Amino acid sequence: MNIAERINALRSLMIEKEIQAYIITSSDPHMSEYVPARWTSRQWISGFSGSAGTVVITNDKAGLWTDSRYFMQAEKELAGSGIELFKMGTENTPSAYKWLNTELDVDANIGFDGKCLSVAETRNLKTHLGDLGISIIEEFDLVNEIWKDRPAIPNGDIFDHELKYAGMTRYAKLTKIRKKMAELNCNYHFAGSLDDVAWIFNLRGNDVDFNPLALSYALIEKEKATIYLSENKVPESLVKSLLDDEIEIADYERVFADLEEISASSNVLLDINRTNLKAFKSISANIIECENPSQLFKSTKNEVEIEGMKNAMRKDGIALTHFYYWLEENLGKTKITEFTVIEKLKEFRAQQDNFKDESFNTICGYKDHGALPHYHTTNESNVEIKKDGILLIDSGAQYLDGTTDITRTIPLGELSKEQKTDYTLVLKGMMQLAMAVFPVGTRGCNIDALARMDLWKNLRNYGHGTGHGVGCFMNVHEGPQSIRQELKDQAIMKGMITSNEPALYRPGKYGIRHENLILCKDAGSSDFGNYLKFETITLCHFETKAIIVELLSSEERSWLNNYHQKVYDTLSPDLDEKHKAWLREKTQAI
Amino acid sequence: MNIAERINALRSLMIEKEIQAYIITSSDPHMSEYVPARWTSRQWISGFSGSAGTVVITNDKAGLWTDSRYFMQAEKELAGSGIELFKMGTENTPSAYKWLNTELDVDANIGFDGKCLSVAETRNLKTHLGDLGISIIEEFDLVNEIWKDRPAIPNGDIFDHELKYAGMTRYAKLTKIRKKMAELNCNYHFAGSLDDVAWIFNLRGNDVDFNPLALSYALIEKEKATIYLSENKVPESLVKSLLDDEIEIADYERVFADLEEISASSNVLLDINRTNLKAFKSISANIIECENPSQLFKSTKNEVEIEGMKNAMRKDGIALTHFYYWLEENLGKTKITEFTVIEKLKEFRAQQDNFKDESFNTICGYKDHGALPHYHTTNESNVEIKKDGILLIDSGAQYLDGTTDITRTIPLGELSKEQKTDYTLVLKGMMQLAMAVFPVGTRGCNIDALARMDLWKNLRNYGHGTGHGVGCFMNVHEGPQSIRQELKDQAIMKGMITSNEPALYRPGKYGIRHENLILCKDAGSSDFGNYLKFETITLCHFETKAIIVELLSSEERSWLNNYHQKVYDTLSPDLDEKHKAWLREKTQAI
Repeated sequence: MNIAERINALRSLMIEKEIQAYIITSSDPHMSEYVPARWTSRQWISGFSGSAGTVVITNDKAGLWTDSRYFMQAEKELAGSGIELFKMGTENTPSAYKWLNTELDVDANIGFDGKCLSVAETRNLKTHLGDLGISIIEEFDLVNEIWKDRPAIPNGDIFDHELKYAGMTRYAKLTKIRKKMAELNCNYHFAGSLDDVAWIFNLRGNDVDFNPLALSYALIEKEKATIYLSENKVPESLVKSLLDDEIEIADYERVFADLEEISASSNVLLDINRTNLKAFKSISANIIECENPSQLFKSTKNEVEIEGMKNAMRKDGIALTHFYYWLEENLGKTKITEFTVIEKLKEFRAQQDNFKDESFNTICGYKDHGALPHYHTTNESNVEIKKDGILLIDSGAQYLDGTTDITRTIPLGELSKEQKTDYTLVLKGMMQLAMAVFPVGTRGCNIDALARMDLWKNLRNYGHGTGHGVGCFMNVHEGPQSIRQELKDQAIMKGMITSNEPALYRPGKYGIRHENLILCKDAGSSDFGNYLKFETITLCHFETKAIIVELLSSEERSWLNNYHQKVYDTLSPDLDEKHKAWLREKTQAI
Repeated sequence: MNIAERINALRSLMIEKEIQAYIITSSDPHMSEYVPARWTSRQWISGFSGSAGTVVITNDKAGLWTDSRYFMQAEKELAGSGIELFKMGTENTPSAYKWLNTELDVDANIGFDGKCLSVAETRNLKTHLGDLGISIIEEFDLVNEIWKDRPAIPNGDIFDHELKYAGMTRYAKLTKIRKKMAELNCNYHFAGSLDDVAWIFNLRGNDVDFNPLALSYALIEKEKATIYLSENKVPESLVKSLLDDEIEIADYERVFADLEEISASSNVLLDINRTNLKAFKSISANIIECENPSQLFKSTKNEVEIEGMKNAMRKDGIALTHFYYWLEENLGKTKITEFTVIEKLKEFRAQQDNFKDESFNTICGYKDHGALPHYHTTNESNVEIKKDGILLIDSGAQYLDGTTDITRTIPLGELSKEQKTDYTLVLKGMMQLAMAVFPVGTRGCNIDALARMDLWKNLRNYGHGTGHGVGCFMNVHEGPQSIRQELKDQAIMKGMITSNEPALYRPGKYGIRHENLILCKDAGSSDFGNYLKFETITLCHFETKAIIVELLSSEERSWLNNYHQKVYDTLSPDLDEKHKAWLREKTQAI
């Protein structure tokens, strides 16, 4: 079937079910960042392959909503499909929900697969529909009925995340969760998101790209807990070990039936941003809405996790040193493209102990490609890297003991004064945040400006957040904390690991981003309370030749020299003489 | 009647009205910061004279809730009254509303004067009462029935705030308000707060301490507007001028009847934080809840107001120079107490053109008194000021053309290293905020940390916000903007005037606070958007001998030297030779 045929088949089903508009999102039943092929319905129905987008189909119209990253790609991929492109964030473009509001009659029915929309998103839809009599029908996965060769539910291996990496038994974690449940007077907690289930039960899987997670739900009671996943993929020994902690395995699909059976007088704790509508509607008990308690627990790493993360940083630093040495040695001698860089980086990382995968799609942006914060090299965009201009590489790895995420910006030729100034101002911001000290209770949005002030003073800025949480052999993007301008009432707490990545993009020219991970730790106490600070745990040199030293304060200069000394001291024992000498040079004090 | 008799009389009335608990707050019908004597019911019923506190009386108990500023005073003033003191913010102390929840039966009635509680506060009360069947009865002002010599409603002069000071006609302001009303589809706007009425109609009055306001409400319609105040106090010429703009004067008490007459199909825009419950309940029309539009309009000063504010700063600077010269000359020669300072400061300010009043109760805190951020000298606390220790003076004035608010911290003897460090760190914070540049849209809570970072790095801090809005011949504390840690989604906008007052308090020892007012202005545009910055408009020297120069960055040192040059250049033309020479010395570059 071509796209038009698929849409027509869907429309026939819509008529049959008396649905006047059908929404197809890019989400899976767990609101995951990376979606298994099984749930790429939006791509299947529209042909648009970007990571973010929503398709809405009515009886006579079809639209795709996506953001500026994908405008060009979507135009190309939608050509001839009859699907209209709605460019989100551009003037006079209605949102999908607003558009629905104007397109539909007051007594219309809107359909979607209730498994692939969160409760919160459904409420957002309802708010946009206003007081009209439009009904929502979430029970039909219409695409499923016409997508004949739809990929199966992934069924990757699942394995125990050993205590030597997790630092806390699953029983101890359940005890923490149950304490929170008791505080909120709940006898059930439903966890619908993969990272929460993985963290709570010390399990990891292979069902999702980049994130070491297994497709699963969990239902936690006072005395027992049930994990819903493909039963046959759990090793026998692990099943036994789980049973020792009163944890049962049940089939992935059985979750809805079990939720229905919870007695109406029970209280169920759940997170409306991490629970799909179908699961929510299966529950007739009282629902206590609350962010999954494991979100905060997971974000504050324990000592074992911190040690693991630091070991991962050391390994990543060795791989990166090898890589950047290789790049410098070979550039101009052999043909190197963006793809070569991506492959080579992965190759060096794979040589490290307990390497499992990349932690996300490497961003390797040469020259103007670097100015696109979310750039991904394609066959069409791939270019050869030469001995001039600026190269931005944002990459990371999953090791059994920790997850990394690092950006370096490499000058490949002589930089202009503007380029050096940009490089230095962004670096100042990164260092100012790295050096911050703040009282317990301070939120990310209270300190984000520290990373921007030097840019702002020069009327420069970047349009994204400065920091996201990073998991431990887990999602590279996690909450609940963030460091950004947007208001969020979540303190930066001891044990949290967050990225520190100020940037600057000059469209059509180049992009600069410096990213380290920072660990929040005690900074001491005084008459004025308890204070926290950051330790930068990423280990990789910066290119000092791109820095205008006079723009640095003496504090910043010391920070950088100390950091470089630490990078050298930590990595050099594992480097051969050639790489050691090279890194010594790269980390010279300025 | 003594306190016990007053409470007994109230209880008799409570029985008569079938009310089981009666709440008496410190508020007037306009939620004013400074409350006319007429509405000091809480003081009358309890004997407690602090500015903040709530009394709750039940059939057999009576309690006063106040904050830590007033614990000692309240203990003294409540002694023997039978009223229990509840220390707010201390552990295991229930809030008044929580306490009510445990004291009352499920079918109890809670009473209060609906004119003296805002709609928002009433909702807060209801939330605390939960699902119990407790009813709220807001119609009885019971204190009024027993307070025989209750002060009358104030009836001060009212006068036109001339266009040469206001910079915008009342008609133009009404047009702005009506545009906002139209946007929200409202045909009425009720303004219940005195500063909003004063700003909209370019009126000023004398009904409230420190704020040049008249007791009033306003009801704005599409074509006409009505101001409710004591009719007889408006000069005939002003009445005529108002009528030219379709603005009528009606009696203060008639407002409730007029609100009742608004047709039920109308939409009324009102601010639940600035509308008392009685006014709210008088309206049967649809209510559109929204911050009073004049709050934001008022905060963004026009060119004439900015010029007026700057002129007020210049006059204030001259008065302050005279005062600090006088202090230095006379300290140790004549007896000077905290009260002397307060009187003398007012005397120097009163010599300036168009001086009307102080803008708040001067805080003059010598040594340990300076460690109390809200300290007010009383007959008991007043002390002689000698040639040692630190003196903190926070004061301000109302001039017809502008309002001032300034804090300086004066070393009167040799300072210890700790004192100098504290003085310098606070000053660094003040300068960092003063030098900030930020994109349009940045909120106060996004930049507050700039004023704290140097303190935080030394594990020091202060427990209040850094900045409040300041009116123009208007309230010295105004919104909607603020610069503080607490999340508030209000951008700092061009034309806003805000205080910049980081501090540090060492209880029992001394307090340090440096406060200037800062005007938000354009900082230019670039590929990265439009930027704003601050201009410090307060004009008064700092004591450079208290600064540890080595702690300043070169940027901070330049800022201070430039500021001192500006202070000297602006003030010296109006100083005699003696004061000029003295100020030249004080403003020497460091």
